Amino acid sequence: MSLFLIIDILGTISFSISGVLTALKKKMDPFGILIIAFVTGAGGGTLRDLLIDANITWMRNLTFVYVIFGAAVVAVIFRKKLGYVRKSLFLFDTIGIALYTIVGVEKGIAAGFPPLICVALGTMTACFGGVIRDILCNEIPVIFRKEIYATACILGGTVYFLLLKTSLSKDFIVIISGSIVIIIRILAVTFKLSLPSIYSKKEMSEE
Amino acid sequence: MSLFLIIDILGTISFSISGVLTALKKKMDPFGILIIAFVTGAGGGTLRDLLIDANITWMRNLTFVYVIFGAAVVAVIFRKKLGYVRKSLFLFDTIGIALYTIVGVEKGIAAGFPPLICVALGTMTACFGGVIRDILCNEIPVIFRKEIYATACILGGTVYFLLLKTSLSKDFIVIISGSIVIIIRILAVTFKLSLPSIYSKKEMSEE
Amino acid sequence: MSLFLIIDILGTISFSISGVLTALKKKMDPFGILIIAFVTGAGGGTLRDLLIDANITWMRNLTFVYVIFGAAVVAVIFRKKLGYVRKSLFLFDTIGIALYTIVGVEKGIAAGFPPLICVALGTMTACFGGVIRDILCNEIPVIFRKEIYATACILGGTVYFLLLKTSLSKDFIVIISGSIVIIIRILAVTFKLSLPSIYSKKEMSEE
Repeated sequence: MSLFLIIDILGTISFSISGVLTALKKKMDPFGILIIAFVTGAGGGTLRDLLIDANITWMRNLTFVYVIFGAAVVAVIFRKKLGYVRKSLFLFDTIGIALYTIVGVEKGIAAGFPPLICVALGTMTACFGGVIRDILCNEIPVIFRKEIYATACILGGTVYFLLLKTSLSKDFIVIISGSIVIIIRILAVTFKLSLPSIYSKKEMSEE
Repeated sequence: MSLFLIIDILGTISFSISGVLTALKKKMDPFGILIIAFVTGAGGGTLRDLLIDANITWMRNLTFVYVIFGAAVVAVIFRKKLGYVRKSLFLFDTIGIALYTIVGVEKGIAAGFPPLICVALGTMTACFGGVIRDILCNEIPVIFRKEIYATACILGGTVYFLLLKTSLSKDFIVIISGSIVIIIRILAVTFKLSLPSIYSKKEMSEE
Repeated sequence: MSLFLIIDILGTISFSISGVLTALKKKMDPFGILIIAFVTGAGGGTLRDLLIDANITWMRNLTFVYVIFGAAVVAVIFRKKLGYVRKSLFLFDTIGIALYTIVGVEKGIAAGFPPLICVALGTMTACFGGVIRDILCNEIPVIFRKEIYATACILGGTVYFLLLKTSLSKDFIVIISGSIVIIIRILAVTFKLSLPSIYSKKEMSEE
């Protein structure tokens, strides 16, 4: 099993668990929990594949269906212990969005889309599973409101394209742009960074 | 007109009416009511067809568009009387999800998807119109929270695949697996069964 | 640059700004605002293209991506001044939905769909960006509840088909049916018309 695949599976596990946690907060039943875990893990890639008119991977290759459902069942059973592995989960999630971003960008390139759209497809792959999760749970998507999350993916995807114009090898480009996503995300969480607020204090207190 | 088609139309009518009832509760205007009726009746199949990259039936064959809009108009006019036919509606709905499940499973088989995905496509056909209805009405989808509804479809779809390995005729397989959906759903409603709660009393009272 | 394209761009700008205004009300961050602006401007056409299995225009031709993002950035910066151009915005929006309706109807005709579906595709092109905007902002779509908005598009699209049976030139048909959308919308806003309420006073006070 390649390192690439292991990382992909770890990322998917962390997405699935994030879906389980959101569904548990909404007191969903076991069926609802599995669906939310699934859309969190697979929703971003599915939306991307619909938009670029590609085959949807999980419908032909069941590996990730099993990974998502397996992770969801384990997460439900050990839900009270999830606090103890919070840091590992954050790390998996961060590596996961880096990888998903690159997968999305590369699928866009392979289908011949312009760079801006490829970066958007990468960001969508990494972030829109969480958007669909939040919509199904009747929340405004969290990545629209706070935290540097999508921004890390956008920057990583952009660096990918800048490096494509250099003579660097493909492996290096992947490692560097993936690391950009990871480093920005870790810095953002460590220093509680978010995008600069465009609201004045007065605007925030209105509502 | 075949029995199959009659059942399909009756199921679609009951879905349409369920959409009307939800839209009325939200005080939607006539346009909103028609849209909600339509997505409730046709949304599950549409999502399935998008995922398997098939032609969307109602866009070429208008029969079901007329059925859904006709049922919606009648339901709005006689909305105060709908209580009297509640039991018929429940029966139509139950037969409807059984039929939609089998239609979805068979479309998946025809397109060469693995059994697990076919069962998912059947369940999606039967249940996701209601999911889209609830999202458009700004509610957490009811089938994620309570009631044995999707579960009946999953079990019926699974039985379909198990019977495919026997020497039973196709008609028998359809009848038996469809009956499984219907019986489970009727038992669940009659005895007020739901999926086993995974929440302790303490968890339920938190929130 | 043709008049057609200028109108299209003005309409897209007004959709983008309407997205910005909704996102600002929800106190979204800059990333969220851009996404909401984008789905408001491009969501209806994207949904249409998914349903008719056509290429999604903005993924190959970036003009509208730049227009939407440019309008969104300007709208955020001058958000306190937007009140002064309210009337221009309304006019752009109204011309925009007229144009989007006709674009959608014509795409449907080109793909060989029946008239009823073509009118639905036109209405979807004009109105469903706003529906997706409202769902992402956790609101019941405003066009399902009040205002003559979709209705204007439906009537304009229907007139388009009626005129196709006459010997009028294509340009005339476009101008007349587009004007129908614009006139109905302006009359509705001027005289505060909405679809006839189907609710009795008693029903409205229940809730």
